[in-house]
Amino acid sequence: MARFTPAISRLVSELSRLPGIGGKSAQRLAFHLLSLPQDKVDALAEAMVEARRTTILCSACCNLTDQDPCEICTSRSRDRSTVCVVENPRDVAAMERMREYRGLYHVLHGAISPMQGVGPEQVRLKELLARLREDDGITEVILATNPTVEGEATAMYIARLLKPSGIRTTRIAHGLPVGGDLEYADDVTLSRAMEGRREI
Amino acid sequence: MARFTPAISRLVSELSRLPGIGGKSAQRLAFHLLSLPQDKVDALAEAMVEARRTTILCSACCNLTDQDPCEICTSRSRDRSTVCVVENPRDVAAMERMREYRGLYHVLHGAISPMQGVGPEQVRLKELLARLREDDGITEVILATNPTVEGEATAMYIARLLKPSGIRTTRIAHGLPVGGDLEYADDVTLSRAMEGRREI
Repeated sequence: MARFTPAISRLVSELSRLPGIGGKSAQRLAFHLLSLPQDKVDALAEAMVEARRTTILCSACCNLTDQDPCEICTSRSRDRSTVCVVENPRDVAAMERMREYRGLYHVLHGAISPMQGVGPEQVRLKELLARLREDDGITEVILATNPTVEGEATAMYIARLLKPSGIRTTRIAHGLPVGGDLEYADDVTLSRAMEGRREI
Repeated sequence: MARFTPAISRLVSELSRLPGIGGKSAQRLAFHLLSLPQDKVDALAEAMVEARRTTILCSACCNLTDQDPCEICTSRSRDRSTVCVVENPRDVAAMERMREYRGLYHVLHGAISPMQGVGPEQVRLKELLARLREDDGITEVILATNPTVEGEATAMYIARLLKPSGIRTTRIAHGLPVGGDLEYADDVTLSRAMEGRREI
């Protein structure tokens, strides 16, 4: 017996290509989808196709948007002198959830990682440099790439590139997460927390 | 700022309805889909719609199929005297992977669970009883529902129903999983393993 029908096998194989979904979860998901009424499956499929179709990159900040320039870039209530550089659109969502940052963003869509063959040309860095050249109202660039090896390397790389421009370049702080337990902090975080200590 | 565009929000909410996919994973999946080329997203969406459209329940065994009766029910090489009752189509796939069982199946599509409001009418039990009434070539029913409270209850319920029919009704064995460690077995499994001990 073929274990599944061809259509089911194809669905399982398509689903298992998604990140974080292994063979078993793909099977589970597939059988779940098959147990739904057709119109629910159609709605999910349509939501995917539609979201992909209507979503473009903002020509200014490279964030995902359905209008160009995006809502943040065109907003009159944002501080246009500060640009926060993040790795991906999820990071913008996280920053916005905080509701404290009122500047603009720049989304790199990745981090430089020579190990994985991602060079400066594979992220949206050219766009950032062009933007800084053209808009002399920008006075600070906050590097908010992830506190990972790749994120650090990317931040250092950008900082070095911006040095000659005289634009203030800052890096978000590393330290103990609020609510975290010092006892359970890893060595690197702890050493960064000590390094970044400030007078109170 | 609206955190996401309406199309992205809709996609995230559709995805988060899938089993085992919480809010965070739904966001991650959505942004992954948005980073794919349109044709890959279309392919996944089409695979879903297509699998759902072409998949029906076998009128004999209630397993998922694209032909009725299904491949197993029509196969000449299967032993038509034995029916193995399982909770869902994934269980059929697992049994078939083993390549030892040559009988037929019956898929209940669930287990009786009064706690969750699933009564005998909510699973495909009526179909099993009709099948046993009509086909007097069936001499053994193997109850292979899961070794959970619901699976046990379902097995007991079916066994009681079949008692008057004189059909041999068996339950798959419970015990230590092969390759498992006695030391780490839970009490119930261990007690079942002792209970089910056999002469060697």
